[in-house]
Amino acid sequence: MSVIYQKVALIGLGLIASSMARAMREKGLAGEIVGHARSAETRETALEIGLVDAVYESAAEAVEGADLVVLCVPVGVMGKIAAEIAPHLAPGATVTDVGSVKRAVIDAVGPHIPEGVHFIPGHPLAGTEQSGPRAGFATLFMNRWWLFTPLEGTDRKALDRVKSLVTAMGANVDEMAPDHHDLVLSVVSHTPHLIAYTMVGVADHLRRVTHEEVIKYSATGFRDFTRIAASDPTMWRDVFLTNKEATLDILGRFTEELFMLQRAIRMGDGDMLHDYFTRTRAIRRGIIEAGQDTDAPDFGRAVPKKDE
Amino acid sequence: MSVIYQKVALIGLGLIASSMARAMREKGLAGEIVGHARSAETRETALEIGLVDAVYESAAEAVEGADLVVLCVPVGVMGKIAAEIAPHLAPGATVTDVGSVKRAVIDAVGPHIPEGVHFIPGHPLAGTEQSGPRAGFATLFMNRWWLFTPLEGTDRKALDRVKSLVTAMGANVDEMAPDHHDLVLSVVSHTPHLIAYTMVGVADHLRRVTHEEVIKYSATGFRDFTRIAASDPTMWRDVFLTNKEATLDILGRFTEELFMLQRAIRMGDGDMLHDYFTRTRAIRRGIIEAGQDTDAPDFGRAVPKKDE
Repeated sequence: MSVIYQKVALIGLGLIASSMARAMREKGLAGEIVGHARSAETRETALEIGLVDAVYESAAEAVEGADLVVLCVPVGVMGKIAAEIAPHLAPGATVTDVGSVKRAVIDAVGPHIPEGVHFIPGHPLAGTEQSGPRAGFATLFMNRWWLFTPLEGTDRKALDRVKSLVTAMGANVDEMAPDHHDLVLSVVSHTPHLIAYTMVGVADHLRRVTHEEVIKYSATGFRDFTRIAASDPTMWRDVFLTNKEATLDILGRFTEELFMLQRAIRMGDGDMLHDYFTRTRAIRRGIIEAGQDTDAPDFGRAVPKKDE
Repeated sequence: MSVIYQKVALIGLGLIASSMARAMREKGLAGEIVGHARSAETRETALEIGLVDAVYESAAEAVEGADLVVLCVPVGVMGKIAAEIAPHLAPGATVTDVGSVKRAVIDAVGPHIPEGVHFIPGHPLAGTEQSGPRAGFATLFMNRWWLFTPLEGTDRKALDRVKSLVTAMGANVDEMAPDHHDLVLSVVSHTPHLIAYTMVGVADHLRRVTHEEVIKYSATGFRDFTRIAASDPTMWRDVFLTNKEATLDILGRFTEELFMLQRAIRMGDGDMLHDYFTRTRAIRRGIIEAGQDTDAPDFGRAVPKKDE
């Protein structure tokens, strides 16, 4: 494939940025990749493992002359970063972001973007429970969705160009209105994360069941919750604070539904439980058919070797 | 390894029984393996794929002359099966079960067990989201825990023999009091399952987010919930109905905790959220260190090929 942007500036060098850097290098999509991270250690690591050609102590320096700037920082600091880089953005450059919430990012970043620069909010639905520059890998976006929530009047050519970049990295693209994005993500990602965090927290607090037992016997069900609840705390704090309305809405529905099932358990209503559990199976089949997961029996997943 | 039981009767031929059959065959642990399933189709499949040497239409016939009988049916029908097989059990035989709840099984099965037969309740903490005789595989129990909740006065030799069987299948064994077992499992398995079912149900009901979108964009967080919520509905209905007290207890704690986090979101208390999410990360590390999961970045797990 051929170069799509001459100079890409990655602001923030965590899991997503490092996966983008690897994918862009592997496919030859960027002439030059530079980066900024707040922490000196992260900057050094990124250089050392060859993610970027250069790192800068300030985001403002990093964006100089870049035709693509990707904001890969937690949603809560996007506005501050945008203010910093704004005077340094090259005319005609595109600024995109990878935040999990779109309305708050648009409100925080949008006002800083100068005339003649294209701001195209985006969100790759990809990630792992790990963080940092070493956590990335080139195939992270393969067959995953990368949603864009373009603003009114967005330049179609600039949008098509950034779409061609993420498509070349293996992603599928789609467009969505920002508020709808935030609601959908609240259902498929944000609320499930909060619930996983909560369940792991309950287990942690419970005194009668010792900490050791929780860990030792985690193999069914709980183990998946701990995986989700191991995700980056700063990123997720910002997601909940900035997608407050949708999260509280979905949480309210979740609690209602949970109370209904709880009542069925208390009343011994087996038919209701059985019907409910049968319906949820259908959604799983749909996800497999849609190619968003495999049918492999994952609970019995690769087991670490015994010591003996 | 050598034969531990001359004739093993598997009552119920689903995921657990078929995995046991495969593991016992692979290691040569049983002289003969016979089985019973209520459905003719399941019996035929079990014979056809060589899980068992013989199948029987009734559980009573299957247990004749067996020195080990394993009850692999949903918890809710254990008592009925025990009543059926009781007059046919060989003197000195061991009856064990694989139910996810122990107090209810002991109460339902115990009274039917005749003098001279050893009843040793058990529970392998292993499984997948799939069911049926074809779902099993020989390595399912490798490095997983198999808990026994022996009754007072249990014959140690009989207990050691069944332990040696499951150890030979790769499991680690542990003993626990039945009520404590039910509480621990409520935390690490039963309540997480109910919560996953609930979250998937919420998504299913939500009209503003279309069904298609829920499936299409499931990749982060929600996908793991749907995997859990694809588990066998009959088995799980029975778990909740028979482990009611512990489930309601843990659900109560879960809801309290969730309300606290919900309030922090509403109030914008970012520090509280960040602290909470940081603590849950530690539990995940413990599980990896305990060898109950790998550190591989599973959210970015093997991606199905694109059609193109």
